[in-house]
Amino acid sequence: MRSLARRILEGDIRAASRLMRDIDDRIPSALDALKELYPQTGRAYIIGITGPPGSGKSTIVDKMVDIFRKEGKTVGIVAVDPTSPFTGGAILGDRIRMQRHATDEGVFIRSLATRGCLGGLSRSTQDIINVMDAMGKDIILVETVGVGQDEVEIVNTAHTSIVVLIPGLGDDIQAIKAGIIEIGDLFVINKCEREGSEKMERDLKMVLEMSHKREDGWDPPIFKTEAILGKGIFELVYGIYRHKQALEQSHVLEKKLRERAKATFLEVLETEVMSRFIQKIEKKDQWDHILDELIKRRIDPYSLAEKMMAEELKDH
Amino acid sequence: MRSLARRILEGDIRAASRLMRDIDDRIPSALDALKELYPQTGRAYIIGITGPPGSGKSTIVDKMVDIFRKEGKTVGIVAVDPTSPFTGGAILGDRIRMQRHATDEGVFIRSLATRGCLGGLSRSTQDIINVMDAMGKDIILVETVGVGQDEVEIVNTAHTSIVVLIPGLGDDIQAIKAGIIEIGDLFVINKCEREGSEKMERDLKMVLEMSHKREDGWDPPIFKTEAILGKGIFELVYGIYRHKQALEQSHVLEKKLRERAKATFLEVLETEVMSRFIQKIEKKDQWDHILDELIKRRIDPYSLAEKMMAEELKDH
Repeated sequence: MRSLARRILEGDIRAASRLMRDIDDRIPSALDALKELYPQTGRAYIIGITGPPGSGKSTIVDKMVDIFRKEGKTVGIVAVDPTSPFTGGAILGDRIRMQRHATDEGVFIRSLATRGCLGGLSRSTQDIINVMDAMGKDIILVETVGVGQDEVEIVNTAHTSIVVLIPGLGDDIQAIKAGIIEIGDLFVINKCEREGSEKMERDLKMVLEMSHKREDGWDPPIFKTEAILGKGIFELVYGIYRHKQALEQSHVLEKKLRERAKATFLEVLETEVMSRFIQKIEKKDQWDHILDELIKRRIDPYSLAEKMMAEELKDH
Repeated sequence: MRSLARRILEGDIRAASRLMRDIDDRIPSALDALKELYPQTGRAYIIGITGPPGSGKSTIVDKMVDIFRKEGKTVGIVAVDPTSPFTGGAILGDRIRMQRHATDEGVFIRSLATRGCLGGLSRSTQDIINVMDAMGKDIILVETVGVGQDEVEIVNTAHTSIVVLIPGLGDDIQAIKAGIIEIGDLFVINKCEREGSEKMERDLKMVLEMSHKREDGWDPPIFKTEAILGKGIFELVYGIYRHKQALEQSHVLEKKLRERAKATFLEVLETEVMSRFIQKIEKKDQWDHILDELIKRRIDPYSLAEKMMAEELKDH
């Protein structure tokens, strides 16, 4: 029988879905498939898109996909959802607005939920991106909610990062801007028909002008969109292409690729090492004892970690 | 000379600040102090407060602190800020509204920024909570922005978790609610003078009623506040006390403590193990070679991680 990876490389979409489920469920054999697929990765152009809930990211993604598809490009979409830690389900679940692309064979959509504290959002996202890349998707859109640390990491490994804002987000808007300024290669003010969009554009421009010159020499442009009507989306896509060009002509692309490779490798290493340690604890049925000792303050977590490392690591 | 930990236990605030900086900077000796402090932890009541940017969390925290202080309780505040990955600085930086507590010796405020991908938000937060706990703070308030995965973890380890919402957050509000329902022990609709607050309360109530009965039997109440005017804050604090009581009378407290201990231990283990691996790579000056191999697809990150584990771990 052909391997799962082979079937994916031959264009079998159900095999791809299967592997992604296996990745979600942390089924060990998924690693074999990922290993087999990896040599076929590195061709897709990865676009990260982030912004607060309600900013219309999904709609923007939806409209961009229309344009990419008209240009004949195939698209992968990874919608990264923060997860309820109790149910294991994704917060945003199915993206209804993207359903109409679901019947398009050139578009592959995957909502990504994470569970527990082990091998989180970033690891799964990297794995899924690799699968879509190996599937031959020309463009991979990674959509994340908010600006949490994991999400910053995810967006950071994209070739082009888009930050979406909307007018009237409240008091903290100045603060948000200050923090996201270095994340965004492109900025979008969506729902630009709303009151306050002019002021927001002025403020954002000012903050961008005041911030340090980027080492790649790129000046992040601001786009005003009304995504629900499709307004401003062509300009945004064109902006992505301009950034892509600038990136390819600078040394920054190489640097981004290295950062991305490093991040992925460390994520994988972390997940695999930690699951080894946890297996050890579970095999010896030690959790109850460990937690008792910790709660009764008979040992501290720092010394316990060192003890365990001394037991498990060579040349300690 | 007395150790840093000893000085902290004797009430030396500058020593506490110093240790927290060392924790931020990952200075190895910080571990010794944390070990020494750990037996003195486990007394503080930890309250997590989360919600989207602009929802007024800082103001709510500020007003709650007024009440706790009037009751004679000492307070620690950990403001967890997602970090710009480029500058290493915190997004929200100084919380101006909380500055007026800065001269109060009974209040210790710490903004928490994180850097890089190693040992992130949760680890540092746990460490800082432990320091404040050992300092003898009666109440520790942990404020986080948004609902990212790390933040969910942080809030999850609190005794009482508060989710703050505001009316008119946009389209995704239904979706947000569905995801945060299980995180919140208490819900706050802040800026309740705004249009849409009644509807939001109705919707939230409905979602709460429809969701699974919690195993602790606790029905999460909804509080309407106008924090800037101090409205509804007494009720909220009273709600926290009611939840504390319910928690102490149920088996859930023990379960929470165990979860918290496990999370902290795994965070510590992860950080320490990973920094060991990274040291190995850096000592042998292997990064350039590794990244070259990965980028050229001569090796995949999954096989490379396995290879490194075989080299470093016993009984592989």
